Amino acid sequence: MLTVHHLNFSQSERIIWLLEELELPYELRVYQRDPVTQFAPDELRSIHPLGSAPVLCDGEIVLAESGAIIEYVLARYGDGRLTVPVTSPQYPDYLYWLHYANSSLMTQITMNWIAGMAAEPGSNSGLLSALKERLERHLFLVEDHLSRATYFAGTEFTAADIIMHFPFGTMKGFYNVGLDNRPNIKAWLARISDRPHYQRAMKVAGHEQDPALDLGETRSVF
Amino acid sequence: MLTVHHLNFSQSERIIWLLEELELPYELRVYQRDPVTQFAPDELRSIHPLGSAPVLCDGEIVLAESGAIIEYVLARYGDGRLTVPVTSPQYPDYLYWLHYANSSLMTQITMNWIAGMAAEPGSNSGLLSALKERLERHLFLVEDHLSRATYFAGTEFTAADIIMHFPFGTMKGFYNVGLDNRPNIKAWLARISDRPHYQRAMKVAGHEQDPALDLGETRSVF
Repeated sequence: MLTVHHLNFSQSERIIWLLEELELPYELRVYQRDPVTQFAPDELRSIHPLGSAPVLCDGEIVLAESGAIIEYVLARYGDGRLTVPVTSPQYPDYLYWLHYANSSLMTQITMNWIAGMAAEPGSNSGLLSALKERLERHLFLVEDHLSRATYFAGTEFTAADIIMHFPFGTMKGFYNVGLDNRPNIKAWLARISDRPHYQRAMKVAGHEQDPALDLGETRSVF
Repeated sequence: MLTVHHLNFSQSERIIWLLEELELPYELRVYQRDPVTQFAPDELRSIHPLGSAPVLCDGEIVLAESGAIIEYVLARYGDGRLTVPVTSPQYPDYLYWLHYANSSLMTQITMNWIAGMAAEPGSNSGLLSALKERLERHLFLVEDHLSRATYFAGTEFTAADIIMHFPFGTMKGFYNVGLDNRPNIKAWLARISDRPHYQRAMKVAGHEQDPALDLGETRSVF
C-alpha cells in the first residue's frame, strides 16, 4: 500500500492528485503547518530528515521530492498512463516541463519571494528589478508554450501538468506571480479545474475551494 | 548529431560530462559570460528563450534544463548506461538525487545566496539564520547519505552523481556552502576527480583546474 505524507497547503497535493488520476489506492497521513510560523511540524522529520512534504512510502521505500515521486509512481504503477513514450515526438516537451517546474520556475519564484522579504523597503532595487525581469521571462515562456499546446506535453493531459500546476495554484498563497495578461495560462488552469480527479484531490488535500481560482489573502512563511 | 550549447562557468558542464562518459559524439558551441556583469550573452536567447544554459539540440529538438537533458540522452542514446533499471532496489535513490539536485539543493543554495545579497548588512538576521539552518539540514542529508553509499545511487557511478556535482563544484564559485566537516562529500568529490571522463569534460568546459578542488575567489552574478 502506498502512503502519502501530506502537509496542508504544500506541494504534496500533487501526489494526492496523481494517485487520484491513476485511481490507485493509498493511505493518507496529514500534517498541519504551525498556524503562526507556517513551519511544518517536527513530526514530519521523523518520516524524512528534511521535514518537508511530499513523502511517499511504499513498503520499506521512503521517497521525497515531487518529481522523483511522480516518476517512481508512473514507472512502477502507471502502466503507461499520464506519461509519454520515449519514442514519442512529445517526449522532450514532457521531460522539459516535468523538470522545469521545480528546478527553474519554482526556484525563480522562490528567489523573488525571499529577496523581497530580505531587502529593506526601497533598497536593492537593482537586484529586485533583475529578478522581476527574469520571472517575467519565465511567465512569457509558459504563456507562449500554452498558446500552442492544450497541455504541457501536447494534446494530452500528463504528469507534466500536475507538476506545473502548483506554481500557479496553491503557491500563489505564498507568492502570487500575477496572471492578468496571461490568457493561455488562465485557460489551462480552467481546463484543469474541470477535471473530476483534480476536484476530488483538492478536497482530499484540504482545500475548501479550488486553489487555482481564488485563494484569498497571500500567506507567508519564515 | 547532438549539439551542446555551453556557457562558461555554468550547469551546462554537466551535459559535456555526461556525453564524455557515454563517449557519444557531439558538437560544442561555447558562450562567454559578460566579464563585468557575469550575465549570459544575449545570443543564447536565440537558442532558447530563457537565455540560459545548458541547451541540447538534436536535429529539430531544442531542449533546456539539466535534468531533462540528462533523462533524454540516457533514454534515447544511453543504452542502459549511467542510469538504474526501474526494477532495481536503487531506483528510488537514483530518482531522488536526480531531482533533488536542482529542485531542492540548488534552490536552497540560491535562496541563501540571494537573501544574503538582498539584505542590508546586519539586518534580517531571523530570515538569514532560518535559511542557514535549512541549508545545514540539506548538507547533513547529503553527508549522511554518502556515509552509506559510494555513489548517490549506491555502488555504481550514475547520472545522479553528474547532476549532484555542480552544487559542490563549480557552484561554489558563486556561493560556497563549505565542506570543512563533511568528509564523505569530500571523499566523493575526490573519487569523481579521479575519473578520466570528468577530467576531460572539465577541460572541454573551459576549466583550467578541477572546479571541485579549488576555485580561488568566489564570483558573483547580478
